[in-house]
Amino acid sequence: MKKLLTMAAALFMMGAVQAQELANFNFGGRKQIVSPEIKGDSVTFRLNANYATQVQLFGNWMPYGQTIDLKKGNDGIWETTIKAPYAEIYTYNFFVDGVSVNDPQNFMVQRDGTRYLNMLFVPGERSSVYNESSKRGTVEQRWYDSKSLGINRRMTVYLPYGYEKSKEKYPVLYLLHGGGGDEEAWSSMGRAAQILDNLIEQGKAKPMIIVMPNGNPNQQAASTLGLETTTLDTRSPENANAYVKSLVNEIIPFIEKNYRAIPKKASRAIAGLSMGGGHTTSATILFPNAFDYICPMSCGIRESDHLDADLQGIKKAGYKLYWIGCGEDDFAMPGTKILDAALTRNGMEHTLFTSDGGHEWKNWRLYLQTFAQLLFK
Amino acid sequence: MKKLLTMAAALFMMGAVQAQELANFNFGGRKQIVSPEIKGDSVTFRLNANYATQVQLFGNWMPYGQTIDLKKGNDGIWETTIKAPYAEIYTYNFFVDGVSVNDPQNFMVQRDGTRYLNMLFVPGERSSVYNESSKRGTVEQRWYDSKSLGINRRMTVYLPYGYEKSKEKYPVLYLLHGGGGDEEAWSSMGRAAQILDNLIEQGKAKPMIIVMPNGNPNQQAASTLGLETTTLDTRSPENANAYVKSLVNEIIPFIEKNYRAIPKKASRAIAGLSMGGGHTTSATILFPNAFDYICPMSCGIRESDHLDADLQGIKKAGYKLYWIGCGEDDFAMPGTKILDAALTRNGMEHTLFTSDGGHEWKNWRLYLQTFAQLLFK
Repeated sequence: MKKLLTMAAALFMMGAVQAQELANFNFGGRKQIVSPEIKGDSVTFRLNANYATQVQLFGNWMPYGQTIDLKKGNDGIWETTIKAPYAEIYTYNFFVDGVSVNDPQNFMVQRDGTRYLNMLFVPGERSSVYNESSKRGTVEQRWYDSKSLGINRRMTVYLPYGYEKSKEKYPVLYLLHGGGGDEEAWSSMGRAAQILDNLIEQGKAKPMIIVMPNGNPNQQAASTLGLETTTLDTRSPENANAYVKSLVNEIIPFIEKNYRAIPKKASRAIAGLSMGGGHTTSATILFPNAFDYICPMSCGIRESDHLDADLQGIKKAGYKLYWIGCGEDDFAMPGTKILDAALTRNGMEHTLFTSDGGHEWKNWRLYLQTFAQLLFK
Repeated sequence: MKKLLTMAAALFMMGAVQAQELANFNFGGRKQIVSPEIKGDSVTFRLNANYATQVQLFGNWMPYGQTIDLKKGNDGIWETTIKAPYAEIYTYNFFVDGVSVNDPQNFMVQRDGTRYLNMLFVPGERSSVYNESSKRGTVEQRWYDSKSLGINRRMTVYLPYGYEKSKEKYPVLYLLHGGGGDEEAWSSMGRAAQILDNLIEQGKAKPMIIVMPNGNPNQQAASTLGLETTTLDTRSPENANAYVKSLVNEIIPFIEKNYRAIPKKASRAIAGLSMGGGHTTSATILFPNAFDYICPMSCGIRESDHLDADLQGIKKAGYKLYWIGCGEDDFAMPGTKILDAALTRNGMEHTLFTSDGGHEWKNWRLYLQTFAQLLFK
């Protein structure tokens, strides 16, 4: 038998050194380089592009429209070293003679809508919860039938560590993405599973289910699946509410039937960013008895003659947390301030949490790791 | 209330036209182009790269090392039209002045190990099962503790449509990836969920659970998660078997405890490509009482003085299907022929299924859609 194993191992090795398919590497031998390389508080970016006449870097920690020129070495490798931005996950890309190019050395890539961007993960306290913990929940992609929208739709569901072996029921956070996003946004760019795995393991957050639906009511699922979209006019007011109604009237019952979810207002939270923040404020105004925890991010509300009455509906129904997050440079800050002031003049307890930066994932991850610690307590 | 909704809708719209974050588009207005564009039996590829002096296309339907030159139009858009390869999913990339660049117009991208490649999906009969069906199973990423490997590890699990609402138990296919792959390979490049959703809906395959573990015993999960790997020497014979042993002694019991899986040999199938084909042949030789369905793909076996005895062990234990798939141009064909001949001279019923092409996903998808129809019947 031992001999067989040695032979089998040789086969494994043969397999292991072969990629599954032949690579689409650039033809011809090229030097292996490292990019990005974080050393102390600096980051070096490198690109092997001997033929290029100009290579520029754009990172989303930089002002929009600004780029940094890389310098070409004698070996044809372009390079630049910059001071690392603070501990977070950023995205970047190169422009090679004007053509947007991802860093071929960096296999950390995220999809934002239809764009694939390289990630720069700067380690540190703030970003530590974006790493895997040791007790990991399950992430699943589950389909449900939306009768009101007339299509089968996909959602991402996070089940906390231990869910499958426990007999407990859990509270549920409904976590909504923004415009251009889909049901994969919070579990990928948002690091929702990692953040909750860490907070739960550290005893900072209650074990909870997170439901991340697709908030585009004309879509069955992320566009990368290539499914046809419906002809629903998503800009019509009626259809915008169609999604919020589907969320409360269809998704919540689906979750509470198919998962061990506590079917009570006190065990439901709703949070969302940008468009999802609009869904959050709308859902809670339309259905004031559905959620006890309300966390809109990077969005706002407009003044109107019925705003106070709408908010009084929420006040009357009662709630346990109204938590608003917004970046100081976010274009949604004026709307956020209107919401903040309206809650104050209506005598509604709430938190306004602000942070540096604008309409961006580094903030939404920070907000999630902040308000998740306040839920269901 | 109606007024509120109109107002809320305006907010949604604001959200909808904003991407979640500002895009990393190339700065400056550029014409929108379509690429790739399939028309009849031709495909056109386009790239907006005014500054480039040379743009080439490489697709994995072409011989390795060959490229096609694109021609530059007066508008700075490079273009080429070719005859579409037959109905399948292919990958391609551009070389812009020698730099490998993905097609920025094409958001269909797949990850193969550490490489991100654009997809070209040519529709037709053979590729029709790679599309979503209307009855979709659940795909989940689940962690399990491997005591023998000393790490917490991730696997992908496919649950057939209706699993959650049924009380039935299901047979299980253990589906193994190749070298360079991980637990995401079969559900992304392999289209395993779509293929089984379609075959099950059409009544061509039995409803089954598919378990897609990570076959790299030193890895917790796909390298994109950034988890540390162990120092396990994966080239040592002992450790190669460590994975196969973990599969049979740890993963199978985990699945049969945590899912409604039928815990019988007659309800277990094992299949794998390349390195995973080596895992398949090894697992069935080491554990002849574990699986009734054995489907190695694009791999083989070496002649040895104990090969016949090893295969007789499987014959004695009994099996229902021994199905081998290999591409005619696959470098694994000689090893496949050795396995084929050894099974024949040992009087073991089996199928050798060959197809054009080499060591590539178009074949492994074809093999899965072929042998899946033979399982558990």
